[in-house]
Order: sequence, then structure tokens, then C-alpha cells
Amino acid sequence: MTRYYLVIEYDGTDYVGWQRQDNGPSIQEELEKAVHAFCGETAVVQGAGRTDAGVHALGQAAHVDIERDTNANTVREALNAHLRPNPISVLQATAVSDQFHARFSAEARSYLYRIINRRAPTTTLRYLTWHVGVDLDARAMHVAAQRLIGKHDFSTFRASTCQAKSPIRTLTSLDVYRDGEVIDIRVSAPSFLHHQVRNFVGTLKLVGEGKWTADNISEALAACDRTKGGQTAPPEGLCLTKVDYPPNSL
Amino acid sequence: MTRYYLVIEYDGTDYVGWQRQDNGPSIQEELEKAVHAFCGETAVVQGAGRTDAGVHALGQAAHVDIERDTNANTVREALNAHLRPNPISVLQATAVSDQFHARFSAEARSYLYRIINRRAPTTTLRYLTWHVGVDLDARAMHVAAQRLIGKHDFSTFRASTCQAKSPIRTLTSLDVYRDGEVIDIRVSAPSFLHHQVRNFVGTLKLVGEGKWTADNISEALAACDRTKGGQTAPPEGLCLTKVDYPPNSL
Repeated sequence: MTRYYLVIEYDGTDYVGWQRQDNGPSIQEELEKAVHAFCGETAVVQGAGRTDAGVHALGQAAHVDIERDTNANTVREALNAHLRPNPISVLQATAVSDQFHARFSAEARSYLYRIINRRAPTTTLRYLTWHVGVDLDARAMHVAAQRLIGKHDFSTFRASTCQAKSPIRTLTSLDVYRDGEVIDIRVSAPSFLHHQVRNFVGTLKLVGEGKWTADNISEALAACDRTKGGQTAPPEGLCLTKVDYPPNSL
Repeated sequence: MTRYYLVIEYDGTDYVGWQRQDNGPSIQEELEKAVHAFCGETAVVQGAGRTDAGVHALGQAAHVDIERDTNANTVREALNAHLRPNPISVLQATAVSDQFHARFSAEARSYLYRIINRRAPTTTLRYLTWHVGVDLDARAMHVAAQRLIGKHDFSTFRASTCQAKSPIRTLTSLDVYRDGEVIDIRVSAPSFLHHQVRNFVGTLKLVGEGKWTADNISEALAACDRTKGGQTAPPEGLCLTKVDYPPNSL
């Protein structure tokens, strides 16, 4: 048996999310089907974390154990062949120690949330961005976002369905930058609560619109109450860009 | 009657192209339906040029004559409201002289052709780029592309179905740049023949693969024979980015 570390890109639009579920096709299920088609083995593809329905990934990480005597290059090529025509692509496969665990070895997760901020509706990027028609002050959003950095009880930004035992997380970075009509919100942390990034974005939008100040963000955080935060931004703007591991684990 | 100049963005994936046709929905038809829904008028939306099925636009230009007493801002907002949920968006509407003609006043057209050059299949950008799995030398493509600049008989790069009277065109610029796995091919000219950009790209790919030299490009051009050129690159990588008009015409 060899454990393979996988880096995976996908378009989440037509899936129920990363995790296998009864109500529709998931990224995990399509990968497990591809593993079975390749080597006849029924193996769990363990992801670094779940993504919701409609959320994308440019750098999801996972691991899978394969009995067949093969190699990393063949695994990557075979999975991609069997994944067609799903918009799921294995960018990298690497043989790793069986001590490596995609979820528990991960040191950090990074996401990009992309807003198209203009009056006219979006077209080519409609499934990859959130269209916001009112002018947003990205600089004010960035300044206010810094109030969220560090170790906090993030209950205000946690989905009611979140299964994590603790609402305490440590936010490493949260940066908001505008380039023309595109506003990119980049966020990193060791781990996240369910909907945490989308709830950050929906709340920071209030700052961008001028309805909230940075102090309102601090107050919302301190309230530890989901009803004191802003809306949950829609899934299509969100993309898991990277999962980091300790250098010696890969 | 007022003539409005329109700048239009669209995702061409699910359309038969810009031009009205009997075999499916076109961008032009959807715009004309939106004009009718807005003001009850049956008007031709005259584009600067046609785009093929599956080709996109970030800056198509058009004009339309509207009898109703209205204004440019209302025209843009109303058309966008009636275009929903089509991925077609009016970015700009401006009242212009009735001497302005979207096609005949245009001085230049610019296109972007985007290739994703990597082994793994594409996912989120699969309808917006051409996936090329073999390594391409973008620098060699750029150097060879310069052989095509200037006034030439472009019969080698012209679709057999092209209806233009003359195969003579003047190519202003053709630049190939790589940024990571993305290769952008940007091209400008006063006007183009049918499939000219896609035939340029399919032929330059031969240079990128090392199968052709820059001299082969010159020989293909001089042959004035479509069978001496490379393949027609697929439509999904192509996007009409801009149509230029003389400053005093708008």
C-alpha cells in the first residue's frame, strides 16, 4: 500500500460540495469512482477540508491509499482520464509516508473570495464570482478586516450547522484589494469554521457600502452571536486556493 | 429617434454566435428581444462584427436606434433587466450621432486568445480557454508571430466559408506572452477575416511545439492556401476585447 498526496482543482458549480452526500454528486465521490475505475480498489479520498456546494478549488489537498503497485505519475494521469468529463483535475500526485494525513497534517488553509463590483451583471465569470452592484470601498473593507486577525471566538461568523467543537480559531491574514472592477479577498488560517469566510465577506460588504465602520466589526466579533454578523456571501465567489503542510511531511 | 452606441460583454458558450440564425439563440437576437421588451420597438442591433458560436466578448460594440424618448442610462439598465438570465451584459450605452455606425465607423478590433498550457485538464476555465497539454514555447510563438504583421493576403488563415471580398488585411499587432500556465495571445487589426485569429493560434501552436520555425510561418503566409496553415483553434479560447472608434465619432 502506498499513500498518495493529491492536489486537486475543481469547478464546484454542479456539485453538492466536497463531501459525499446522498443528495447529489460530490467531488469526493467522483474522485473515489476514478480510483476504483483505475485500480478496482474501494478507497476513501480524504480531503484537507470540506467545501460547500458551488464553492471551487484551485488547490484542494487530499490523500488516498492505493494497494496496486504503481507510481505517482500514473496515478495522476489515470485519475484525470477517469474523471473526464467532470471539471475535476488532479494537478499533482506524490507518494508520501503513511504518517501523512491530508486533514490532520495541514498547517494552514488559504481561500480567495472574488467580487465583481460594477453596475452591469457579470457574464463569463457568473459562476466564479459574486456580483455586487453597489460601489464598495475596498480600502475601508481591508482596514476593518484587520480587526478580525488573531485568536478569537468567531461564533458571530460561524454557521448554525457548524460541527466544530470550539468556535475559537486563529486568523492569520485577511486582505482586501481592488484591481479595477475586481475585489479580491484573500484569507489564511490554520483552520476555519463552517461558512466563516463567506460570513466574513458578507459582513465586510457592509463596511464597503459605508453602512458599518471598523468599530462595528469589532463589536460584532465581541458579541459572539451569529445574528450580529452580516449575510453569508454566496458560494460561487469562494475558492480554496492552497493547503499548506510542514515541509518534512511531504 | 436616437442612436445608442453599446458596449457589450457576453459568454458565448451557449449561443450560435453574435448573428441571428435559424438554428439557435444568438447574442444579437437576445439583445433585439430586450429592446422590444423595453420599448416595444423592433430594431436591429448592429454589431461591430460577428463572433462565432462559443466565442466570448468583453467589449463587443453595437448600435441601435430607439424611437422612444429616453436616455442612455435607462437604455443600459432596461436592456440588462430584460436580458436576464442570459449571460449578456450591456456595460455602456451612449447617445451618438446617427452618422455613427458600429461596423463601418470602427477603426480597429482587438481579440484575446487564452491557452491554458499544462498537463492536467482545466476545470473552472474550461469554457473560457483552450487546454493544450503539450509544452509550448511562448517566446518562439511570439517571435514567429511577428512574421504576420503588416498588409498581406491572408488566404492561408481564412475560413473557406469567409464572405469577405478580399483576403487582404493589415495586421497591427500579434503578441504572445506566458504568465505561469496561461498563454495570452493578443491581436489587433482594423478588421479580420473569418476564423483568422483562430487560424493564427492553431498555426502558432505548431511553432510552440517546436514542429515549425518562424520561416515556416512566412512560407505558409506566402502560400495563400488554407491547406498550408495549421488547425483552427477551438472557439472557447477566443474573446473580442475591444472595438475602437475615432475619438470624434462617439
